Amino acid sequence: MLHNDNLEQWDRENFFHASTHLAEFARGNIPQRVIKTASGVHIEDRDGNRMLDAFAGLYCVNVGYGRPEIAEAIADQAKELAYYHSYVGHGTEASITLAKMVMDRAPDHMSKVYFGQSGSDANETNIKLIWYYNNILGRPKKKKIISRWRGYHGSGLMTGSLTGLDLFHKKFDLPLAQVIHTEAPFYFQRKDLGQSESEFVAHCVAELEAMIHAEGADTIAAFIGEPVLGTGGIVPPPAGYWPAIQEVLDRHDILLVADEVVTGFGRLGTMFGSDHYGMRPDLITIAKGLTSAYAPLSGSIVSDKMWAVLEKGTDENGPIGHGWTYSAHPIGAAAGVANLELIDKLGLVENAGTVGTYLNTQMRAALTDHPHVGDVRGEGMLCAVEFVADKDSRSFYDAADKIGPQIAGKLLEQSNVIARAMPQGDILGFAPPFCLTKDEADQVVTATHQAVASVLG
Amino acid sequence: MLHNDNLEQWDRENFFHASTHLAEFARGNIPQRVIKTASGVHIEDRDGNRMLDAFAGLYCVNVGYGRPEIAEAIADQAKELAYYHSYVGHGTEASITLAKMVMDRAPDHMSKVYFGQSGSDANETNIKLIWYYNNILGRPKKKKIISRWRGYHGSGLMTGSLTGLDLFHKKFDLPLAQVIHTEAPFYFQRKDLGQSESEFVAHCVAELEAMIHAEGADTIAAFIGEPVLGTGGIVPPPAGYWPAIQEVLDRHDILLVADEVVTGFGRLGTMFGSDHYGMRPDLITIAKGLTSAYAPLSGSIVSDKMWAVLEKGTDENGPIGHGWTYSAHPIGAAAGVANLELIDKLGLVENAGTVGTYLNTQMRAALTDHPHVGDVRGEGMLCAVEFVADKDSRSFYDAADKIGPQIAGKLLEQSNVIARAMPQGDILGFAPPFCLTKDEADQVVTATHQAVASVLG
Ligand SMILES: Cc1ncc(COP(=O)(O)O)c(C=O)c1O
Ligand SMILES: Cc1ncc(COP(=O)(O)O)c(C=O)c1O
Repeated sequence: MLHNDNLEQWDRENFFHASTHLAEFARGNIPQRVIKTASGVHIEDRDGNRMLDAFAGLYCVNVGYGRPEIAEAIADQAKELAYYHSYVGHGTEASITLAKMVMDRAPDHMSKVYFGQSGSDANETNIKLIWYYNNILGRPKKKKIISRWRGYHGSGLMTGSLTGLDLFHKKFDLPLAQVIHTEAPFYFQRKDLGQSESEFVAHCVAELEAMIHAEGADTIAAFIGEPVLGTGGIVPPPAGYWPAIQEVLDRHDILLVADEVVTGFGRLGTMFGSDHYGMRPDLITIAKGLTSAYAPLSGSIVSDKMWAVLEKGTDENGPIGHGWTYSAHPIGAAAGVANLELIDKLGLVENAGTVGTYLNTQMRAALTDHPHVGDVRGEGMLCAVEFVADKDSRSFYDAADKIGPQIAGKLLEQSNVIARAMPQGDILGFAPPFCLTKDEADQVVTATHQAVASVLG
Repeated sequence: MLHNDNLEQWDRENFFHASTHLAEFARGNIPQRVIKTASGVHIEDRDGNRMLDAFAGLYCVNVGYGRPEIAEAIADQAKELAYYHSYVGHGTEASITLAKMVMDRAPDHMSKVYFGQSGSDANETNIKLIWYYNNILGRPKKKKIISRWRGYHGSGLMTGSLTGLDLFHKKFDLPLAQVIHTEAPFYFQRKDLGQSESEFVAHCVAELEAMIHAEGADTIAAFIGEPVLGTGGIVPPPAGYWPAIQEVLDRHDILLVADEVVTGFGRLGTMFGSDHYGMRPDLITIAKGLTSAYAPLSGSIVSDKMWAVLEKGTDENGPIGHGWTYSAHPIGAAAGVANLELIDKLGLVENAGTVGTYLNTQMRAALTDHPHVGDVRGEGMLCAVEFVADKDSRSFYDAADKIGPQIAGKLLEQSNVIARAMPQGDILGFAPPFCLTKDEADQVVTATHQAVASVLG
């Protein structure tokens, strides 16, 4: 292949990669991979390897790679106006149009959207707005945020605190004091194997109630959750979970933040996960699906109820002290408009639903009977396979055995299919682009079956 | 003009603008402005108004608007590969090349660069790395961050805490406990008018020493500062400030974070402010100038000294638990490469120095004698004019009189020149693109002179 032969050296000498073993990468013991181009569900590296990306980047390239419609929208915007800020009433045709398109798609009781760059910064914005809201309402003590173990809400200091995964806390002094964690709605990993699904939901609700009681409802501002747990293991909620949680929150006047960074704009086969599960959020976090990752853009969608208080806040205190230089960046906004148009035009939300269901059905059929497959689960274009050392006792492998990463590695090596070993537990995750075909779904299932057989027999 | 007539309505109904009086904007009492295109130092709105942007967006469009070289790099990247992640050793030719270009330009003792999206998230990354560093070194108590009043380091929860401006704290319960603030090196606003500049530096140093003594050096991890205070009022440090601060930090083993979001890549007429003032930072924050805002991209540049400890940390603990989905986004990386190449090719760092000096000299000549101009100051392509009610007693106007905003408004209204009323104090700030010509500098000075005369006589 013709390429810049210095890239590997430059990379190891200069580039601090995310979520990487820094020493091993610098020493050359972790492979370095330069991605060159991509199209549909396939990516290609500079050595000519072509891979089926069944995780859509980091579950974000929802419309698939290489869409000329979005590339052209970005190119046109870059030429016409690459940047202007959105402070104090400024905007661009793209950012205003996108605001309108987002609100047209959001649940009816939502009012406005604030644009940021990442899922993490949108959750930062959310917490700022929640604290501001309770200060304006004269409830200075009502500030704690309840998150869930295994939730993923970002990698910053406060957002990494919301995240309920050990890897993101250890050695970083997180979580910060304002964040507390309650039980994950992870039925398969329940402690009490005897619990039915509805008993488990009752248990989650009781845990939440107990926490609110112990802390005092007057100290709890909000509850944040992903409609379907994502990075924590791709776990759809047990039936009835969200309505039961919503009832508790309503009763204690606790705001609900639906983190729809993964589920927003179609991944569950519906526009929002909040619709899908009957959540009534006060804030919705959006990012990945908003632009299908073609450009960094995120958002915080604010409900009518909160917006009225924010307006009151500025009447009392003047302009709101919040802004990112790149809020509503024109390139991101143009990508977002083209992306949402394309999703409609190609019926990709529906496709995520139908082909996602097909993928889940086929995966279940192929793997459920394997002696080391404990669970196959999913919703829409999300699917997970969880491995166990022993099925009857539902005992897990030692983390040091790295069963999940081994299988993900085998899948890539044998079949050029990318799935993701989720960071906590031996869970193989799938989150393909919405344009996945049934043939491609079959390919993923067959390859997974083979990889599992290679590693676990 | 031909345009979408719904934009204004869509905007007011759906769009939550940064740093805006939300109620007044919704009611239609704050003008709405849709920027359509831009070129060089001029922007144009959809009603055909052409304005000279003497603040380069939010001091970020350093190479000027409408550069085809950058637009084309973005277009090519969007077509070839709009997105892939940079986790676990993944990258693209653009992101690796940019890492190399950044490190070639950074001070010699720096080792690696981590890419984010915004200045705020780069400072989040910095604090995470600082805490991790001291945990790996077995100093769990050494965690507090000293920032300065009037510093600006972002708008998040922790980064808004670093920011030392009331507007960003009020009603948001900031600053958080881990951040403490010391004296701003703002000689013109010193309390004791009798102090000489060197006495004032000694005072700043004594304040810092007293804080370290009171808190205990074993509890203080880092000190963060902009080489030149930016949003806090555009204030170059008094002579000798940084070497004196550096000496204190070294003596107490406190890390230095140079926040070069504004000063990085040439605004002071040198590549970095750290070079300019002889700072020896352990971390450098970069954002705006890295891409000239053509796409969202930021970075944390890590020193050799810190990097060695981070490597040790991953040897002991495995992969580092930090990552943004859009870390090293290919579109931002492509924009960054093209931007840094253009800066070199056009000699824009040098131009920022020479034309910046010219702008400052002319502004001083035109305005210093005005009875209500207390100070004209600047460095490179940064300039500020500060207004006073009375010169001899150096008494300030009441904030409610909004003298700064009035003058900025007049400047735009009379001369179509954009400068920024800085948020705290009556300070008019200028930070034009580096490609400003001397003629354009003259235009800015003349227009400012007229606006000041219109408002203050
Ligand atoms: C549910 C959820 N929220 C927030 C985030 C953080 O988004 P980002 O990586 O863009 O900061 C993620 C990222 O995976 C996510 O899955
Ligand atoms: C010195 C400095 N640091 C950090 C930031 C925050 O950058 P961003 O707005 O991209 O989050 C800014 C923004 O103006 C800044 O001036």
